[in-house]
Amino acid sequence: MSIRSRHEREGEPMLPLMDRDDVDAFLALEFPQMRHAGREIIVAEVRSGTAVLRFAPDERDLRPGGTVSGPSLFALADYAAYAVVLAHVGPVALAVTTNMTINFLRRPRPGPLLAEARLLKLGRRLAVSDIAVRPEGDDELAAHAVATYALPHERG
Amino acid sequence: MSIRSRHEREGEPMLPLMDRDDVDAFLALEFPQMRHAGREIIVAEVRSGTAVLRFAPDERDLRPGGTVSGPSLFALADYAAYAVVLAHVGPVALAVTTNMTINFLRRPRPGPLLAEARLLKLGRRLAVSDIAVRPEGDDELAAHAVATYALPHERG
Amino acid sequence: MSIRSRHEREGEPMLPLMDRDDVDAFLALEFPQMRHAGREIIVAEVRSGTAVLRFAPDERDLRPGGTVSGPSLFALADYAAYAVVLAHVGPVALAVTTNMTINFLRRPRPGPLLAEARLLKLGRRLAVSDIAVRPEGDDELAAHAVATYALPHERG
Amino acid sequence: MSIRSRHEREGEPMLPLMDRDDVDAFLALEFPQMRHAGREIIVAEVRSGTAVLRFAPDERDLRPGGTVSGPSLFALADYAAYAVVLAHVGPVALAVTTNMTINFLRRPRPGPLLAEARLLKLGRRLAVSDIAVRPEGDDELAAHAVATYALPHERG
Repeated sequence: MSIRSRHEREGEPMLPLMDRDDVDAFLALEFPQMRHAGREIIVAEVRSGTAVLRFAPDERDLRPGGTVSGPSLFALADYAAYAVVLAHVGPVALAVTTNMTINFLRRPRPGPLLAEARLLKLGRRLAVSDIAVRPEGDDELAAHAVATYALPHERG
Repeated sequence: MSIRSRHEREGEPMLPLMDRDDVDAFLALEFPQMRHAGREIIVAEVRSGTAVLRFAPDERDLRPGGTVSGPSLFALADYAAYAVVLAHVGPVALAVTTNMTINFLRRPRPGPLLAEARLLKLGRRLAVSDIAVRPEGDDELAAHAVATYALPHERG
Repeated sequence: MSIRSRHEREGEPMLPLMDRDDVDAFLALEFPQMRHAGREIIVAEVRSGTAVLRFAPDERDLRPGGTVSGPSLFALADYAAYAVVLAHVGPVALAVTTNMTINFLRRPRPGPLLAEARLLKLGRRLAVSDIAVRPEGDDELAAHAVATYALPHERG
Repeated sequence: MSIRSRHEREGEPMLPLMDRDDVDAFLALEFPQMRHAGREIIVAEVRSGTAVLRFAPDERDLRPGGTVSGPSLFALADYAAYAVVLAHVGPVALAVTTNMTINFLRRPRPGPLLAEARLLKLGRRLAVSDIAVRPEGDDELAAHAVATYALPHERG
C-alpha cells in the first residue's frame, strides 16, 4: 500500500491519504463478509472528503419482494462511513462507530445500490459523516444516515 | 395464533394484543433469517409496553475477538422494536422502520445478548420505542437505540 | 400571499409552491420570536428542494465568548426544516417536528449564520430534510441536523 | 462548593461527585438564562446515574395554545444531560454536547415539566445519556432525547 504521510498535509485535512485501491484492499482484508456468498461491496471512488461504495446484494440482504433489508442498508452505510474516515486518516483499524442515525426513505427497487459518504467534520477525536444511499442510476434516496466515529488517541 | 381484538382494548393502549408465543411465531415466519445457520433470535418476554429478545450470535455476527458487529446489533435492535410494536398493535406486517438512532456504548463480551424494547409512544401513525442491549447476566449496556415505526393507514 | 395550487404540480414534488417572500411572511406571522429584541431570522432563499435562512443572533443566543448556544442552533435548524417543508407543501400550519438529530461540529465564530435545509423525502405523511449550518462567508459547518416532520392527514 | 474528589471513587463511576445543591449552583452561575424573566429551571434531584430538572416555562417558551416549543424542550433536555454529566464527573465547564437526537412525542399540557436524565455510559472521552421529559404529575412522555457529551482530555 502506498500510503502518504498524514503529516505532509496538515493544513488540508480533506485530502485523502489513501486512494480507492488502498481503501478497497484494506476493507476487503478487515471485513471479509463484504464479499461473500454472492454479496459484493466494493469501494467505487475516493475523492476529497468523499467515498462512494457500490453494493450488489445477495439473497441474505433481501426481503420478500426483492427490496434490501434495513440491517443491510445500515451495514452499507456503516462501511461507507468507515471508508471515508479511513481514506482521510490513513489505515487506522481501531476507529469505531459510536453513533449512527439512519432514515429509511423509500424501498429501493431491486439491483445494486450506491452509498456516498461525505465528511462533515474530521476532528482529532471524532469524525462525523453523512451517507446518501440510492439505487444505481436513480436520483431518489433509499436511505440517509449520519455517523460518528471515535478516532484512536494517538492520532494527530 | 390466538390474537385478541385490538378493539376490545381501546382505552388501554399499553396492554399487549399478542403474547410471547404469538409474537415469536409471527416473527419467525416473517423473518426466517432470525434463526438460521447457528444464529438464534427468540422473543423471550412480552409484557405491558415491553418486549425482550434473546440473541445467540453465530459466526456471521462476530468481529475478530468475538465481539458482535455493529450491523448485527442494529438488526437485533430493529427486531426488538418491531416485536414491541407488533405485540401492541397486532399482526400488522406492513409496519416499517422509518428512523433509528443507535449508540454503541461498550464492546459486548462474547455470548448471548438481551434486547429490551420499550414503547415510548404508540400513536395512530407512529410508534416510538427505545431499545437497551446488554450481554445476558450483565447490567452494562452494549448499545442503546431509539426507533420510529410508521403504522399502516387503516390502523385505529 | 400568492400561493399556487399544489395540485397543479403533482408530478414535480420538488418544485416549491411558495416563494421566498411567501415563506418569510408566513413564518414571521406564525413565529414572532424569530424577529424580536435584536434577533433576526429571515428566509434568504427558496429554490427546488431547498430553503436557506439567515440568522443574526442577539444576546440571548450567545454563550460567553460570543459563540451561538446549542439551543439557538437547534431552533435555527428547526425553522429551516419547517421553511423547506412549508415552501413545498404550501401553508400548512399544522406540520410538526417529530424527530431531530443534530451534530454540533465546530463552535461558530461570532456573526450571522446561514442554515440550508434540503428535502431528502417529501412523502404523503412524513417529510425528511437535512440542514447544514455555517457562518456566513465560511465553508466549514458549525452544525448539521436531520429533521422529520409529520404532515397533516388531509394532505395529498 | 463542597466537591468531593473524583479520584476517591474510581471503581464506582455512577456515584455522583456533586450533590443537588452543588449542581444547581454551578448551572445557575454558568447559564444565567436558566432563570430569567419568569423562566425557572432548577435541579430537583441528583442520585446515582440520574439528574432530574424542573422547568417552569415563561412566555418565550410557549407556542400559541400554551404548549412548550420544540427549542425550549430541546434546551431543557440539553441542560438535564449537562447536569447528569456534571454531577458525575465534577465541575468540568468544558464538556460540550456533540450530538442530540430528540423525539417529540406528545404536546405537553401547560404547566411545569420534569426532565430526567440518566447516564447510559460514562467513558473517559464520551458520556451518553437519555432524557425523558414529562409534565409534572403525568406519566406520559412529552419528549425523549439521547445526548452525547465530549469530555475534556485531561479527565481520568
